[in-house]
Amino acid sequence: MKATVIGLGLIGGSFALSLKDNALCERVTGIEHSEKSAQRALELGLVDAIVTLDEALAESDLIVLATPVDTLPILATKILNRLRPDQILMDMGSTKQELCEVTMMHPHRGRLVATHPMWGTENSGPEAAVHGAFKGRTVVICDRHLSDDDAAEQVEKIYRTLGMPIRYMSAEEQDMHCAYVSHISHITSFALALTVLEKEREEEHIFDLAGGGFESTVRLAKSLPQTWAPIFLENKYNILDVLREHIHQLQIMRRMIERDDREGLMEAMQRANKIRDILK
Amino acid sequence: MKATVIGLGLIGGSFALSLKDNALCERVTGIEHSEKSAQRALELGLVDAIVTLDEALAESDLIVLATPVDTLPILATKILNRLRPDQILMDMGSTKQELCEVTMMHPHRGRLVATHPMWGTENSGPEAAVHGAFKGRTVVICDRHLSDDDAAEQVEKIYRTLGMPIRYMSAEEQDMHCAYVSHISHITSFALALTVLEKEREEEHIFDLAGGGFESTVRLAKSLPQTWAPIFLENKYNILDVLREHIHQLQIMRRMIERDDREGLMEAMQRANKIRDILK
Repeated sequence: MKATVIGLGLIGGSFALSLKDNALCERVTGIEHSEKSAQRALELGLVDAIVTLDEALAESDLIVLATPVDTLPILATKILNRLRPDQILMDMGSTKQELCEVTMMHPHRGRLVATHPMWGTENSGPEAAVHGAFKGRTVVICDRHLSDDDAAEQVEKIYRTLGMPIRYMSAEEQDMHCAYVSHISHITSFALALTVLEKEREEEHIFDLAGGGFESTVRLAKSLPQTWAPIFLENKYNILDVLREHIHQLQIMRRMIERDDREGLMEAMQRANKIRDILK
Repeated sequence: MKATVIGLGLIGGSFALSLKDNALCERVTGIEHSEKSAQRALELGLVDAIVTLDEALAESDLIVLATPVDTLPILATKILNRLRPDQILMDMGSTKQELCEVTMMHPHRGRLVATHPMWGTENSGPEAAVHGAFKGRTVVICDRHLSDDDAAEQVEKIYRTLGMPIRYMSAEEQDMHCAYVSHISHITSFALALTVLEKEREEEHIFDLAGGGFESTVRLAKSLPQTWAPIFLENKYNILDVLREHIHQLQIMRRMIERDDREGLMEAMQRANKIRDILK
């Protein structure tokens, strides 16, 4: 199989490596709008060559979209317009409703497989790509019934080979759940970084004192704004809903601390401890 | 040197191991009010023996307090009352103002060295104790001028042997900085866990989808309420201050998402990205 990955950053670059490392493709090419990133991707051996979209459409069996989520609906439509019935298009975006709504009535919709592999780090660009990135992580396939069976099966085979359990849900469900288990974590992390940067003028102290706790909660604040602004806006209503609840929970804790309500704090934290059982 | 550690949980247990692993003490004993934990600490080899406070005062050169912060002022006072001039008392608590204020005028105040090693995990109890826990982490020594030189030097020697850079500050400064770089992280983590548990009734989805991002921001929500409720209440005013700013930052982000203010979001996240340079 020949594949072309569009967008050679953290996700696309790591996926290109995985396709080659697992002998899933004999040739993996890339498309990357930043010339510098394209050059780096080649140097790092993420892809065999940088190609044009015309070349990709002529030679590749699989085209993979790994660009920011706000670019996906138009990019997918333009590619579906020109896709042969034996070619497959897949995306790896963190939100799915907009993509699935825009492409819903496209006569070639069956060639698109909408996926979201639940993996990422706070790093970005071709340098952030790593070997074995997706192993063991869950991947969500959205609206599977809208994809042709042969296209979905091919993509499922790839993810299974990478060692990823597959979950099926609608685009609506996926966007709602991801607001809870991924997007809100990024927002709180960004807000926490801003809080500390705002309050702590003496940066030396942050640097010196930041224990493991701070580093892990604030790690996601290093993430790329170009990736996350589109995600927050595309998943706006789910995120606003979770954010409202999160601020509410913080206000409850604030009030308990204000009132020296030790019992209330203990009870709330014991409830929060349940996350241990769920995450194992 | 002979030492007794009071409180054989995550911090005290790990410190007992460090004292022995680094040949700093030929004998390390422990005091632990939970009989079950005392038994586990012995089985795990954290200490050579479980002793009474009388025995500790008779035989130990160093007594280490590693109990919840709300127990420290009274426990320290009672021990200082009975300490010989050649013995040293140190504590490892996460807040310092209350301890330092209560012991301020004690005639034996010089024998107390108030320290806060910036290390911890979300686990608790004797089972959470690990070898090499503190290596490379900063330790804060508070109000160093109130400790006798020989006592402070002995404690500094221990921390240096463990490979820990030492920072000096007042109890007030330490509590303020720790509100920013440690305590607030725990509060947001607890609140995040409660948010998700509140909203996500189908726990299966959290379990399946939770990527690395969620796990790292919510990790601290597994922490022990008995440890953290006293910290939040002892450091109340600093924490309320940081919490107010953090909720404010979340509200700003919420408003930008509501208004589709992509530019504002990008700018805020780029500012948050600076945390990368500070944490390296």
